[in-house]
Amino acid sequence: MVSLKELWERETIDGIRNVIRKPPGLGPGDDSAVIPSLGGDIIACVDSVTFARHFPKGMKYEELGWTAAAVSISDLAAMGAVPLGLLAALTMPPDLDSSSLYDIMAGMDACAEAFDTYIYGGDTKFGCGAVSCTAIGSMEGRKPMLRSGAKPGDIVAVTGSLGSAAAGFFAIEKNISGVPATSLMTPVPRVAEGIALSSSGGVTSCIDLSDGLAEGARSICGASRVGMDIHMDFLPEGDGVDTVFSKAGVRKEDMMLYWGGDYELLFTFDKDKRETLYDHDIDFSIIGIVTNDHAPYINYEDKREVMGNGWY
Amino acid sequence: MVSLKELWERETIDGIRNVIRKPPGLGPGDDSAVIPSLGGDIIACVDSVTFARHFPKGMKYEELGWTAAAVSISDLAAMGAVPLGLLAALTMPPDLDSSSLYDIMAGMDACAEAFDTYIYGGDTKFGCGAVSCTAIGSMEGRKPMLRSGAKPGDIVAVTGSLGSAAAGFFAIEKNISGVPATSLMTPVPRVAEGIALSSSGGVTSCIDLSDGLAEGARSICGASRVGMDIHMDFLPEGDGVDTVFSKAGVRKEDMMLYWGGDYELLFTFDKDKRETLYDHDIDFSIIGIVTNDHAPYINYEDKREVMGNGWY
Repeated sequence: MVSLKELWERETIDGIRNVIRKPPGLGPGDDSAVIPSLGGDIIACVDSVTFARHFPKGMKYEELGWTAAAVSISDLAAMGAVPLGLLAALTMPPDLDSSSLYDIMAGMDACAEAFDTYIYGGDTKFGCGAVSCTAIGSMEGRKPMLRSGAKPGDIVAVTGSLGSAAAGFFAIEKNISGVPATSLMTPVPRVAEGIALSSSGGVTSCIDLSDGLAEGARSICGASRVGMDIHMDFLPEGDGVDTVFSKAGVRKEDMMLYWGGDYELLFTFDKDKRETLYDHDIDFSIIGIVTNDHAPYINYEDKREVMGNGWY
Repeated sequence: MVSLKELWERETIDGIRNVIRKPPGLGPGDDSAVIPSLGGDIIACVDSVTFARHFPKGMKYEELGWTAAAVSISDLAAMGAVPLGLLAALTMPPDLDSSSLYDIMAGMDACAEAFDTYIYGGDTKFGCGAVSCTAIGSMEGRKPMLRSGAKPGDIVAVTGSLGSAAAGFFAIEKNISGVPATSLMTPVPRVAEGIALSSSGGVTSCIDLSDGLAEGARSICGASRVGMDIHMDFLPEGDGVDTVFSKAGVRKEDMMLYWGGDYELLFTFDKDKRETLYDHDIDFSIIGIVTNDHAPYINYEDKREVMGNGWY
């Protein structure tokens, strides 16, 4: 079930790591990088959304701009960082109306404002429609949460709920009414939750779910060299998932496991330190346990399946 | 003499500033942004090079990657910052061979290494060929040099020499031998010079010459609300300028004033503090003086012309 695009991305990511030097701090391979500086670690990441791939039917330019900011802010959130500022690099089709460009930037600024940060600069060139957003943040003395670090016996948990971005997408595609498109059009990164999780001291790994639960679980398992048992019945179901399932027959696991666009945090924590999580007043659901296995598994009442592709 | 592209860029830059909030520290409008943090100011910038616009005949993918890094590192140099790390966001044509992608990244890494820094992360999407490089740096306690701050009576100076990137370009276009293309293909940002200039305490404004001397002078004059008198005879002539002029008739001012790609620093300094510049052992040429006027002027033996477009 690996797409050509995914194969290309995985191969090129590995290939790129082979041609660049490994930096001090933390380089490619996690949600954000950790850049050492005299004033403390700087957390930084960049991600691009493109007109071709991240611009679903019904999305406005403001929402594309919001999403570009949200995607990168979410990569800071996964480390537990506080956003300090954003930079935007746009490549825009020459025939794009300048008001659409301003709408993109206004949407990006609105998302920055929602997380108490700002756009600090950028660059605009002609191209075929991409918005790259760099997010810069600070741990303010806390330790960044990484994908590696999960240990067998740790609890697996997720913030918020799963599948509402996918449900919003299918509702538009299939003309189903009564399903909110908010998660799809203006995703909300879990900044406060990331800060609380990293403050708790009990979290052993964390990732954001931009690429879906299966892919997120696979990344943590691969980086931590562990497996996971996740239980379908434990998964918190997002708005609209049930409606899209019953009206259009889209499988719930396709929306909740294999679809991206939910900017929730997937994390593991030391079960002996679970009290510290409750102390930090974080809204999360326990969905499984870390195992000695070599892949994340999804458990149903009557079966157990590898979730997506194993990491081995 | 303003191109449509320039008009569009200027209009959109102004338009963007109208729709985003002004951040604390220093936002859009200088070579880099200054992002306040608990650990001290973070200097950051992003710039993109595209296959369509920054990929002259004869350039290799490694050189495009080098250039992408150099352009952003140069924006740090103009502030006087030390590079701490780079991030790369690539949008690549689906038919691009992955080895070309690795060449781009290897070139970017080689430039990072030349300035004692690293690539910390990135993102690759399908698109039509753009490399956006974010550079993050630190002032290490020094004050950043801005475009504003030039005062009438200050001396105008430039590092290195002018026109060699343009000469390299025309030599390839017009098949002229004996002209080095080094400045064009692997530009060298003036990081050590920027650090020394910001350490001196005598510099009142600074900008890099990525867009040419005329445009750089216009930017400083506009931001500082001053004019400049620059003398053609004082300009340090880059390698190949004379050859291209004599063999192909390209005017020297077109190469030295109106062409981009020279990653030198243009700066102004308080003439009473000039000794501090000599103490810092910086290789520079004095090219003029800051005036009360409303534009930068270029002076010849027998005439005086507005250089490019005034800022008023």
